[in-house]
Amino acid sequence: MELTHFDDKGNARMVDVTEKEDTIREAVARGKIKVSRAVFEAVADRRIAKGDVLTVATTAGIMGAKNTFQLIPMCHILQLTKCAVDWQLDAAACEINCTCTVRCKGQTGVEMEALTGVSIALLTVYDMCKAIDKNMEIGEIYLAEKKGGKSGHIINPREV
Amino acid sequence: MELTHFDDKGNARMVDVTEKEDTIREAVARGKIKVSRAVFEAVADRRIAKGDVLTVATTAGIMGAKNTFQLIPMCHILQLTKCAVDWQLDAAACEINCTCTVRCKGQTGVEMEALTGVSIALLTVYDMCKAIDKNMEIGEIYLAEKKGGKSGHIINPREV
Amino acid sequence: MELTHFDDKGNARMVDVTEKEDTIREAVARGKIKVSRAVFEAVADRRIAKGDVLTVATTAGIMGAKNTFQLIPMCHILQLTKCAVDWQLDAAACEINCTCTVRCKGQTGVEMEALTGVSIALLTVYDMCKAIDKNMEIGEIYLAEKKGGKSGHIINPREV
Amino acid sequence: MELTHFDDKGNARMVDVTEKEDTIREAVARGKIKVSRAVFEAVADRRIAKGDVLTVATTAGIMGAKNTFQLIPMCHILQLTKCAVDWQLDAAACEINCTCTVRCKGQTGVEMEALTGVSIALLTVYDMCKAIDKNMEIGEIYLAEKKGGKSGHIINPREV
Amino acid sequence: MELTHFDDKGNARMVDVTEKEDTIREAVARGKIKVSRAVFEAVADRRIAKGDVLTVATTAGIMGAKNTFQLIPMCHILQLTKCAVDWQLDAAACEINCTCTVRCKGQTGVEMEALTGVSIALLTVYDMCKAIDKNMEIGEIYLAEKKGGKSGHIINPREV
Amino acid sequence: MELTHFDDKGNARMVDVTEKEDTIREAVARGKIKVSRAVFEAVADRRIAKGDVLTVATTAGIMGAKNTFQLIPMCHILQLTKCAVDWQLDAAACEINCTCTVRCKGQTGVEMEALTGVSIALLTVYDMCKAIDKNMEIGEIYLAEKKGGKSGHIINPREV
Repeated sequence: MELTHFDDKGNARMVDVTEKEDTIREAVARGKIKVSRAVFEAVADRRIAKGDVLTVATTAGIMGAKNTFQLIPMCHILQLTKCAVDWQLDAAACEINCTCTVRCKGQTGVEMEALTGVSIALLTVYDMCKAIDKNMEIGEIYLAEKKGGKSGHIINPREV
Repeated sequence: MELTHFDDKGNARMVDVTEKEDTIREAVARGKIKVSRAVFEAVADRRIAKGDVLTVATTAGIMGAKNTFQLIPMCHILQLTKCAVDWQLDAAACEINCTCTVRCKGQTGVEMEALTGVSIALLTVYDMCKAIDKNMEIGEIYLAEKKGGKSGHIINPREV
Repeated sequence: MELTHFDDKGNARMVDVTEKEDTIREAVARGKIKVSRAVFEAVADRRIAKGDVLTVATTAGIMGAKNTFQLIPMCHILQLTKCAVDWQLDAAACEINCTCTVRCKGQTGVEMEALTGVSIALLTVYDMCKAIDKNMEIGEIYLAEKKGGKSGHIINPREV
Repeated sequence: MELTHFDDKGNARMVDVTEKEDTIREAVARGKIKVSRAVFEAVADRRIAKGDVLTVATTAGIMGAKNTFQLIPMCHILQLTKCAVDWQLDAAACEINCTCTVRCKGQTGVEMEALTGVSIALLTVYDMCKAIDKNMEIGEIYLAEKKGGKSGHIINPREV
Repeated sequence: MELTHFDDKGNARMVDVTEKEDTIREAVARGKIKVSRAVFEAVADRRIAKGDVLTVATTAGIMGAKNTFQLIPMCHILQLTKCAVDWQLDAAACEINCTCTVRCKGQTGVEMEALTGVSIALLTVYDMCKAIDKNMEIGEIYLAEKKGGKSGHIINPREV
Repeated sequence: MELTHFDDKGNARMVDVTEKEDTIREAVARGKIKVSRAVFEAVADRRIAKGDVLTVATTAGIMGAKNTFQLIPMCHILQLTKCAVDWQLDAAACEINCTCTVRCKGQTGVEMEALTGVSIALLTVYDMCKAIDKNMEIGEIYLAEKKGGKSGHIINPREV
């Protein structure tokens, strides 16, 4: 199997998608941050008070998704037509779950945008809570689902 | 316990570090990407051929660490004096482990820079290998070690 | 009335424009900076000499308009096809008036690009003149006109 | 009086501050956006519900302040040690007032950072409310106060 | 002959391409860096060992090409569909030759992207080798070839 | 001789300057663009009219110099205290010569900032004149002079 991001002389390159068709693309990525009880409660409390860790993290995640082409060297610049970040709080496990959904009409997929959105959103939660807990851990970042383009509708085995 | 990134009216803010002393700070963060055997071998082979997934990812990780203040909303801008990205390949587990070490002389720590460096480096590996494997997973991103500043030398329990 | 930038759970999001049609869009925004007589004359003089505050501010305004999607969190990335910054000097009032006109062919309007262009252009004038006058004031920034898309041709009541 | 941002041949330049002393600097800027009653209420309501226009705008304002050196051509890059954005809602006037306070220890002042922070925060409010009201107006952006450096403590006449 | 980047009042502007047709565009730019024998050998050796000056420079060149619209004030933002950086080592002359090829489907050409890609790639080689040689020189940066759009297929006289 | 931008395992890295002393640093870089007679006259004429190719290019060059740490992967982020771009028109040779001078007080030199400033300024001239002439050539970009730090005062042999 071949890495598509290298030419036959071994130079890294952006894959040529010039001849590919514009189709509607969508990608959903997920990830989580495992935090202490104290952090979990601080974040969950904010959720019902004014001000809000997760609104700041959502904002950062959306801006991060839009910045993907400047962060990930071989990513194409795409005109995202939708970007949303959702959160699910798992109190039993002290875990904050993040989902980022991205859409565009273009020549290549938006999975990197969704994955970058999740990563930056979770890093922002980390940053805003690190004064309380220095042992938080970010993990299980994966592509949950992908639609559009040659590869069609793909669902991660974890999702089924 | 208090979230330091909010004032008493609940507004998000950058923490005021004006009166803090300049000290030498260092942070080490780790993370990994779990890949298929096919991806693992493609990456490991590049390692000994010309061109190299991991050199591209190292470059992206260092640039990402330098961009942290523009990605994570409440992060201070810091003059990083060192940034290095290292890799350890675990063939048995099909895992590519990444470590990012950052130093600066400043008024606040560089853990977010190290964590962002690891995250962007791993996302870059994902991007360059996603044509082969769509089920890769990024995880176990944590602060391994931190030196300098008021909190002194901190080592993550995972490291000992 | 509803804020479109939140989903029904209250999460901030970028509005989904995937299904909207590409049409030619145009927006014109205006704003002004009120300056002291000394600043006014320094700026007006440059206008006829080599070098020029307003050329630097025009350059910054155009670059700012292009950066809108990275500055305003919920703005879409758009391929601007035109961006122009014009100036009108009002000597009687000691006011420097700025107009920014932006066009694109896309799925959503360019009013934020025009407003951001005006804002950055005026801030640049402020920056270059602040050694002379610290009481300048930027104001009356509004959308003068908007064409294209579902809402059609809109003219601000101030303009008529 | 001289514009300091030009050399004697008329070339635009960044002012040389190499020989200036590091002192603690602070700047406070203000501005406002005049909105319709419907927008005012939508923003004020969010303030007490989950999710929040003003938290997104605060986040954008802080990120904008940190980006000032890349937006305003002749601004120096400074290590901001504090950046805060505050809001005051004036229900009678349907006005949303924004204050941005910035501090650093450096060789030049942070007034442009404070003014840029206010401008980007207000543009973000505009963006998130423009579906309801297209005649909002941003204005009265000025430097309220400035401390540190050669010019000492300066208070805008508007403030006294 | 007229400079197209100014309106008839002499204001700098981005050229209006709204009415131009989308066609496939391609541009190839070249440039070189002249280095000492010691640098040349260090770079060439890396080429066959793990790690690699030219992979880092390729990465930077591609990212630079994607950033063109934010670096060159009057450049349009374009959705590049291909970006590749190639190298040719001329051992006799101690010269490292760089070629950058860019494609997009859009309303204006990509020559600035190709030229910026070459420039940033060569600056990166300079940076990574400057500890050995402070007299390197970058030069002969030109547009080799250009296809698509109104001006059709253009080949630089140097190429024939 | 060793490339300092790689560790002993061959990983690219930012050089660690943590222990280096803060000293005042200065670098001067030069470069030129060779243009047709028609371009030369258009640029020179602007010089004495309102509006000005070279003011736009100066602005872009200064902004480019400030962006160096985000363009050149292994460059440190530095607080530039001065950045100036000068031009010298050589009518006989149809050449536009550019000089960029950068200063900072820091732990590493500013030669890359000066070289990047020159490169971006010259690319901007290219962009604004390319409608007239497609065979322009940018070249002879080199470090003219460097002061401060361990290596002391260095003057390029070309300068003497």
